[in-house]
Amino acid sequence: KSQFSLLPIISFLREKKNKHDMRKWIHSIKVGVALVLVSLLYFLDPLYKEVGDGNAMWAIMTVVVIFEFYAGATLGKGLNRGMGTILGGGLGCLTATLAQEVGGIGKSIIVGTSMLIFGGAATYCRLTPSIKIRYDYGAMIFILTFSLVAVSGLRIDKVIDIGRERLLMIVLGFVICLFTSLFIFPIWASDELHDSTISKFDALATSIQGCLEEYFRLDSEKESKPIASFSKCKAVLNSKSKDESLANFARWEPWHGKFGLSHPWEKYLKIGEELRELAATILSLKACLESPRVRLQTLRQSIKEPCEVVGSSLASTLRELGESIKKMRKCQAEILIVPKLKSVRIELSNVTSPSKLAQLENADGLAI
Amino acid sequence: KSQFSLLPIISFLREKKNKHDMRKWIHSIKVGVALVLVSLLYFLDPLYKEVGDGNAMWAIMTVVVIFEFYAGATLGKGLNRGMGTILGGGLGCLTATLAQEVGGIGKSIIVGTSMLIFGGAATYCRLTPSIKIRYDYGAMIFILTFSLVAVSGLRIDKVIDIGRERLLMIVLGFVICLFTSLFIFPIWASDELHDSTISKFDALATSIQGCLEEYFRLDSEKESKPIASFSKCKAVLNSKSKDESLANFARWEPWHGKFGLSHPWEKYLKIGEELRELAATILSLKACLESPRVRLQTLRQSIKEPCEVVGSSLASTLRELGESIKKMRKCQAEILIVPKLKSVRIELSNVTSPSKLAQLENADGLAI
Repeated sequence: KSQFSLLPIISFLREKKNKHDMRKWIHSIKVGVALVLVSLLYFLDPLYKEVGDGNAMWAIMTVVVIFEFYAGATLGKGLNRGMGTILGGGLGCLTATLAQEVGGIGKSIIVGTSMLIFGGAATYCRLTPSIKIRYDYGAMIFILTFSLVAVSGLRIDKVIDIGRERLLMIVLGFVICLFTSLFIFPIWASDELHDSTISKFDALATSIQGCLEEYFRLDSEKESKPIASFSKCKAVLNSKSKDESLANFARWEPWHGKFGLSHPWEKYLKIGEELRELAATILSLKACLESPRVRLQTLRQSIKEPCEVVGSSLASTLRELGESIKKMRKCQAEILIVPKLKSVRIELSNVTSPSKLAQLENADGLAI
Repeated sequence: KSQFSLLPIISFLREKKNKHDMRKWIHSIKVGVALVLVSLLYFLDPLYKEVGDGNAMWAIMTVVVIFEFYAGATLGKGLNRGMGTILGGGLGCLTATLAQEVGGIGKSIIVGTSMLIFGGAATYCRLTPSIKIRYDYGAMIFILTFSLVAVSGLRIDKVIDIGRERLLMIVLGFVICLFTSLFIFPIWASDELHDSTISKFDALATSIQGCLEEYFRLDSEKESKPIASFSKCKAVLNSKSKDESLANFARWEPWHGKFGLSHPWEKYLKIGEELRELAATILSLKACLESPRVRLQTLRQSIKEPCEVVGSSLASTLRELGESIKKMRKCQAEILIVPKLKSVRIELSNVTSPSKLAQLENADGLAI
């Protein structure tokens, strides 16, 4: 029967994998399309003559560098690039003008010193975690533009001329990116974060049931099957950095589908944190499952029934919570689930003194 | 007394933080210096006339984009950039020549189609995890160079001319980066990975002792202090992605200090994995510490002594293992530690039936 219950999971995973693979193909084709669109600049002669060879390059560069897998990441990178270019260009322009005014050897000294100071300061900012997470790319573009403009040593009117054209090209590249990213089969980081949070609940529920099944299996059957339920648990445990970057991208994303403009993304991170703690607890049962337990056979059988009740009610609670996030409706936790869990807990502490299960139950109480 | 034992840890952490901050400053100044060095290209007139304005730009761009915090990251990015430029330039050149041969409207079609195909294929490669982890940047530069060269539609001799100059500039920027990154206060990813692995052992040992202290404290004192030992444990638990990127950078790094050319970095990842599992086990004790346990007061006191023996021997084992990695000598595990742990385990199972501590002990057996 347990073999049977695994089949839908496997087919679900395969479908999921295919879906992910499908998205990869879609993204690849979208990048290709964006490149073709931007190369039209070259092919349509009048436009090409307007912008010139050296500047049209910037549009291609923008498309290649900015286009990311998730729509939010593309949007964030594009805005960063724009801000960095404008700030860096402005400051570089000032420096160049000042250097021209001084002239002679002082010119090189002023430019060099300002590059040392601004380049160093911006690099230090890039290493500060709070800035790094959202504005890393913008700071890099700031350093790049500042250096290029300051060093070229052009007069302010010339710089404004070139700068306007380049900025136009960058904006053009950005618009092409946005168009392909947001309007042709968009891949939203917010959807991904939402779905992965839901699937975490499911994975943990499956793990708990798998653990119990493993634990109460008769010793004779023990060698027949490996412990399979921990890989999902570990995946949940290691999801922190991925969740954080998804939440960060999701913040850049505009209103779409079921997500409003100020969707509480930081709450997903909090839920993830709790789920990771629960995953740690479940993972710690692994050692328990692997330890020799022949002499405990009778004890084990005596607690089997209440434990299975606890396990299945925990699993169904987790699935219920996941479902309520999926449907975005308030969970009936306080009215229905909490009393149920409490009664189960009391029942459990009657049968067994401080054992691993008390722990498990407890941690789940926290997760709610 | 426990207050006293915390002081050196705090001062150690502060020192560590300052050390990290110090490294940030060093890196920032190094970036500034590299920028000044590359801007000398502009200031020293003969060189500037040689390379021309449009091409000298590429040297600055290379420095800004390639210079990373760790020496290995800089080296890896630089090599990626070189490979991507050569490959993309070559293929772009072929495409452009082919398109010229055909001419007319066919030219645009050939360039457009090849951009769609190669851009899409390279993007798909970037999304494949095994390529992404090492060659993501190279693939991006490949797309960029390919698009720029293919679209510019220049004849092969002209492209080789421009390409040679640009490649020279990129190499120049790369050399400046390497010089400042490797020879002026280098920041090695390998050192960081080595040190962080060692400090993980220490953090877990401290956590185990903290847990035991907390557990056996009298209930009257309970409210006086918060549970502090879990933050380190969580940091260990969430170290996976950082470890992986460090190991990836470390692989690029040349022979230096105590690390040979083929230092087994993947073993650090394996050790990290085991330590994370142990951290998960320790973290699962948190729920146990937070649960009400008034009625167990007497039971607790009866197992206090053996548990403390176990705890301190686990902690000292962990510290011993960390020390042996630090000094890079073979640990005397099989002769000294394993028998000690085994005897402790037997003693423990005599006092207490399957409780949390059996679990803890077990997981540590795995970690060795």
